[in-house]
Amino acid sequence: MALEAISENVCFGGVQGVYTHGSSACSCPMTFGLYLPPAANTGQKVPVIWYLSGLTCTHENAMIKAGAQGWAARHGVAVVFPDTSPRGENVADDPEYDLGQGAGFYVNATEAPWAPHYRMWDYVTEELPELLFHEFPLDPEAQGITGHSMGGHGAMTIAMTRTGTYRSLSALAPIANPTESDMGRRQFAAYLGSDRALWRAHDSTLLMRESPFPGPILVDQGDADPFIENLRPEALAEAVAVSGQDARIRRHPRYDHSYFFVASFMEDHIRHHADILHGR
Amino acid sequence: MALEAISENVCFGGVQGVYTHGSSACSCPMTFGLYLPPAANTGQKVPVIWYLSGLTCTHENAMIKAGAQGWAARHGVAVVFPDTSPRGENVADDPEYDLGQGAGFYVNATEAPWAPHYRMWDYVTEELPELLFHEFPLDPEAQGITGHSMGGHGAMTIAMTRTGTYRSLSALAPIANPTESDMGRRQFAAYLGSDRALWRAHDSTLLMRESPFPGPILVDQGDADPFIENLRPEALAEAVAVSGQDARIRRHPRYDHSYFFVASFMEDHIRHHADILHGR
Repeated sequence: MALEAISENVCFGGVQGVYTHGSSACSCPMTFGLYLPPAANTGQKVPVIWYLSGLTCTHENAMIKAGAQGWAARHGVAVVFPDTSPRGENVADDPEYDLGQGAGFYVNATEAPWAPHYRMWDYVTEELPELLFHEFPLDPEAQGITGHSMGGHGAMTIAMTRTGTYRSLSALAPIANPTESDMGRRQFAAYLGSDRALWRAHDSTLLMRESPFPGPILVDQGDADPFIENLRPEALAEAVAVSGQDARIRRHPRYDHSYFFVASFMEDHIRHHADILHGR
Repeated sequence: MALEAISENVCFGGVQGVYTHGSSACSCPMTFGLYLPPAANTGQKVPVIWYLSGLTCTHENAMIKAGAQGWAARHGVAVVFPDTSPRGENVADDPEYDLGQGAGFYVNATEAPWAPHYRMWDYVTEELPELLFHEFPLDPEAQGITGHSMGGHGAMTIAMTRTGTYRSLSALAPIANPTESDMGRRQFAAYLGSDRALWRAHDSTLLMRESPFPGPILVDQGDADPFIENLRPEALAEAVAVSGQDARIRRHPRYDHSYFFVASFMEDHIRHHADILHGR
């Protein structure tokens, strides 16, 4: 299935689009949002920030709630909002919100019943980039990646694994150490099987201890986040300390896990990426 | 029923709350959103902007999509997001989206079956202000009012009628001349009856011709708005011209009627109100 535009709305002088396409990685139709800033109106290639969303989200939540477009317009960067899992009646699911549809965890599942569709790692790092750089005026040499919660986990693990691809990295309230968390162990066991050695590639705290991201990272975390015990920011902070990762980890009193938290710090994240991607 | 907090989330250093209370004007429970900026954290009274929403909206749409909180925080103003109608199983409704629940049109209905609950004029201009100024640190001497679509209609008619109460006024894609529009005639006939003389009090174009708002107003309108024939911005522009209303009416090529349009110009609207309400 070719790329199909679901909607395109002018926003801060650029265009917020929603598109669907047949995914070979996920073996189902996939929908994503893409914000192109005014700088792209003339077809000029612009840097792109990948925004990976959290549990239960589709492509839409951050697109309408995070307030990213205004800052992306000002800084001349695009933002792509992928979905968080394969979807459809024929796609395996789980009654709980934190496994199955809406909870892909940015891995390639190897286990039944997940393996046929749950290949979000390949989708986000290979198939969707190939499609985007073919169809839109985006600069493949200027990619950054960020995300919220499960999406922060995805952003960090992807960026630390494929360091040649992503030049800038940040995260908002990421699931930072999923192999030691109830937000991670159950899902990795389901998607990847019981061999915990295979989980390590998807734990940003463990990855950082071995090989930090080659650049400064920005991580924001609310102190009133009800999921903080499962996000494990202190494990990430320790990995930063022992690995020498160049990092700014900010703790924000009173902030929770909602998009009201995400929106409050979106300006800083867009600027973090734009400064690096524009080489300024 | 006393005021009950449904949720409170820290946002841009202030608090985005959602509250419910029993409304005597509407004879049902009513829910609203209130953003208090950081300037109010110590209990200091801050100016307040009323944001009236459009057809189909609840208190929530603008609260999560319009991106108002960041600008309200910077400018030290509160924003209140009322619902757009009474609601509930015992409240009259209509199968169409543009009449009944979600479509109160900011009038006091006099006709059956609407009269018992549809008193949004009284709710927004009397009951909710009384509650808010009693419960929250808001300055009743520094009120502005704005809105989108049906809410722009509400904001303009209310401000031009109660000029002693609202010191600043703006609107986004307002239904500007409802007595000559399919977005107005059917609803006014239902809520107010067939005597068109009674409709005049709820048509901002007609009100402005008789008595302009005593201050500068800001109105934004997208040229690609699919509802533009029913919004009738040209009638409003003519009323501005003949009345001498101090107005900045901006037409924006390519923009539609969505919240992506609203969010794009929210900064300007918050600043318009804040400059007046802070006396700067």
